[in-house]
Amino acid sequence: MLDTHIQNELIKIAGRARYFDRQEELTCYAYDAFVKEALPDAVILPETTLEVSGILKTASRFKIPVTGRGAGTSVCGAPVPIRKGIVLCFSKMDRIIEINTRDRYITVQPGVINADVQKALAPFGFFYPPDPGSMNTSTIGGNIAQDAGGPRCLKYGVTHDYVLGLEVCLASGKIIRFGSKNIKDVTGYKLASLFCGSEGTLGIITEAILKVRPLPETVKTLMVTFDDLDNTANAVTDIIGSGIIPAAMELMDKLTLNAIEDGANLGLDRKAKGSLLIEIDGVKEACEKEMKQIIEKVKQNGAVGVQEAGSELEREKLWAARRSAYAVFAKLAPDIISEDVTVPVSKVPLMIRKIIAITDKYGLKAGVLAHAGDGNMHPMIPTDRENKEEWEKVENAFSEIFRAAAELGGTLSGEHGIGLAKSDYLPLVMNNDTIEFMKKIKQAVDPDLILNPGKFV
Amino acid sequence: MLDTHIQNELIKIAGRARYFDRQEELTCYAYDAFVKEALPDAVILPETTLEVSGILKTASRFKIPVTGRGAGTSVCGAPVPIRKGIVLCFSKMDRIIEINTRDRYITVQPGVINADVQKALAPFGFFYPPDPGSMNTSTIGGNIAQDAGGPRCLKYGVTHDYVLGLEVCLASGKIIRFGSKNIKDVTGYKLASLFCGSEGTLGIITEAILKVRPLPETVKTLMVTFDDLDNTANAVTDIIGSGIIPAAMELMDKLTLNAIEDGANLGLDRKAKGSLLIEIDGVKEACEKEMKQIIEKVKQNGAVGVQEAGSELEREKLWAARRSAYAVFAKLAPDIISEDVTVPVSKVPLMIRKIIAITDKYGLKAGVLAHAGDGNMHPMIPTDRENKEEWEKVENAFSEIFRAAAELGGTLSGEHGIGLAKSDYLPLVMNNDTIEFMKKIKQAVDPDLILNPGKFV
Repeated sequence: MLDTHIQNELIKIAGRARYFDRQEELTCYAYDAFVKEALPDAVILPETTLEVSGILKTASRFKIPVTGRGAGTSVCGAPVPIRKGIVLCFSKMDRIIEINTRDRYITVQPGVINADVQKALAPFGFFYPPDPGSMNTSTIGGNIAQDAGGPRCLKYGVTHDYVLGLEVCLASGKIIRFGSKNIKDVTGYKLASLFCGSEGTLGIITEAILKVRPLPETVKTLMVTFDDLDNTANAVTDIIGSGIIPAAMELMDKLTLNAIEDGANLGLDRKAKGSLLIEIDGVKEACEKEMKQIIEKVKQNGAVGVQEAGSELEREKLWAARRSAYAVFAKLAPDIISEDVTVPVSKVPLMIRKIIAITDKYGLKAGVLAHAGDGNMHPMIPTDRENKEEWEKVENAFSEIFRAAAELGGTLSGEHGIGLAKSDYLPLVMNNDTIEFMKKIKQAVDPDLILNPGKFV
Repeated sequence: MLDTHIQNELIKIAGRARYFDRQEELTCYAYDAFVKEALPDAVILPETTLEVSGILKTASRFKIPVTGRGAGTSVCGAPVPIRKGIVLCFSKMDRIIEINTRDRYITVQPGVINADVQKALAPFGFFYPPDPGSMNTSTIGGNIAQDAGGPRCLKYGVTHDYVLGLEVCLASGKIIRFGSKNIKDVTGYKLASLFCGSEGTLGIITEAILKVRPLPETVKTLMVTFDDLDNTANAVTDIIGSGIIPAAMELMDKLTLNAIEDGANLGLDRKAKGSLLIEIDGVKEACEKEMKQIIEKVKQNGAVGVQEAGSELEREKLWAARRSAYAVFAKLAPDIISEDVTVPVSKVPLMIRKIIAITDKYGLKAGVLAHAGDGNMHPMIPTDRENKEEWEKVENAFSEIFRAAAELGGTLSGEHGIGLAKSDYLPLVMNNDTIEFMKKIKQAVDPDLILNPGKFV
């Protein structure tokens, strides 16, 4: 618990009603969707940038850690306050400030839920492309801090491709703004990109200007099943290699398909060894042509079931099934570890074989779910971390999986981030001088290291 | 001139043949396409990353400024060595290291010319989207250092959207690598974006991994003329507002059109007050449909001439004319200042009126050329900077133009960068704390401030 005079200072800034420090209150902010937990000393729900600035000034003076938090859906431990201190939760800063589709941007507070941005833009015929699996719950502030991806990022890019400008409170409490409402802007360092994926270690985001896009005229969705997982992966590299870039290309293996079918009862082929959920969008005539080419490619690769969604309802059912994967897996055991590695897309078939070989070796059950078009894979292992022996196997298996991805020219994370989960593995993909370079930037702007300490930097 | 023992050290690293310090040699590296010049003490043409590293180690030890240089086509003074020291010119590091279209990347040395990247990719059916006006001369290293744009960046984004990974030599001589060959990568800070547009102030780029795209199946090009400049600008906002995002949308005013026609003799309508060169690309059927919609929109906005390129040759002629604008303007007077401001696209008509009003007020002749679809404008003023009185007017006019752009929510530069030209104007678009934040990052990684000193940070 914080000293009484610090408590009083913080309460003076944010008010008693938005300051929490009772055990049962703190518990709600002690975890995310990763396996580690830590109680903060206090939780504050700020309502304005000035409050955030004031809290940081106090925190800075007393060298108290400050960890930003959106909806807590991170799967790498990024918002877990392992050095205690203050959690700043943005549920009260959830306003959409401006929608300007003529100039293709939207200005929001960090606590706005991703899906609410989509809902606000839809009547104007626009959308915000990044669509993390958590989009119905996760916030834009969290999406930016983690540089969230999602299925349709294959065609449209990830969060950092859409952040035009930010307002940020620094550790000192100073408020800075950079970027602008302009699609093209090379005025000074590209700080907006630097903050994307910085996991709250450089400053606390209090406002964001996001680029938006016109909704495509047509969307076409295809579910394809294969009786061989290699064929499934080969179909992906074949389609991408031919120059078509679908909006999304989601690969699921047999275990994942069956877990989904257990939950959703969609009539998916339980015997299939692999499946692809492929979506293309754009001008109607272009979609029709590309869909024909895609169907040809999957058949050439031995597809056994090819089903095009005939209506928006059918499409929604297919996506609801895909999006349920994490939840249905989570029911299989007390804990579920959804990992995140990326390899160049031509290495997807090989990487899938490696994941299976590694988890088999440790006698673990693993499902493979992948945004396969950009080589981003989520091996999922249901487990029980109270079972020490099994947990050690899970940790060893993931360690081998990370090493395998790095050896194939891949990387540690495509969209989940580093957080607590993977900071030990950074040397697999970058040399010491590069890690030092990141630390220097961090130290220069947060000399007392109060911003989300104990994470990747 | 550098002290003899420093010279000897540098010559030992790079060899006598690639070390230059005679006045007539240095003169070639004293300028870019901006108006200021400064002689360096020495010019070195490194051939390897290790040479660059060695040179930086020596420079660091003796606190000698080091300025990177590609082809010197910058229009903001970025590569001008105003604090003297060493210019590192990358003409000898111009190798394409790997082309991998299956995984959609290309690895290059910094001295490779942009157009050579395009030529290397074309046989594979791929391209690298950023297409600065200087693409036939300018290098990838320079493009990255300046975060270059170009006409088709409207649809495809600018340089930082395509830099996946970099190898960089720091001021200390240490070599760091970050990013990867993976389209999705959230491992650590997004350093590749930080270096885009950093103008050589954080490190010297020695290798780059660039994202590439499949060439579109079809390209359609349209030249439209209007008898009113407002109508021209309104057509732009109307097309963009309707949800169509062309590959390019180039606006030229009467003065620019006539200057081009003087040079290229294309049969352009000399009486037209404004023109648009519009290009769309993608699947054939989609292009046909969108071209119809675009023609409808320009006619609704009072187009007087609508001419679609009937062949690749006609298309090339239209683009050659557009690309000649800078050169033909340069012939009108001893100096030509091509400026670069961006405003939100809905403000383009208003901003054009402001540019004209401001230059009229000072009695200056100004042409307006704009990548209008993303609000990026290049007012061009032919002048003679030996004529002190006129030069003062030019400087005052641009100062007012920058202010006007900032007041409209615009910014100082869309693609040319800040360099020497605009660092004094930074406070128009960012507060002191934001400028301080950039300086802290710079100081943290280049404590002796040897990297391209005297520029925006």
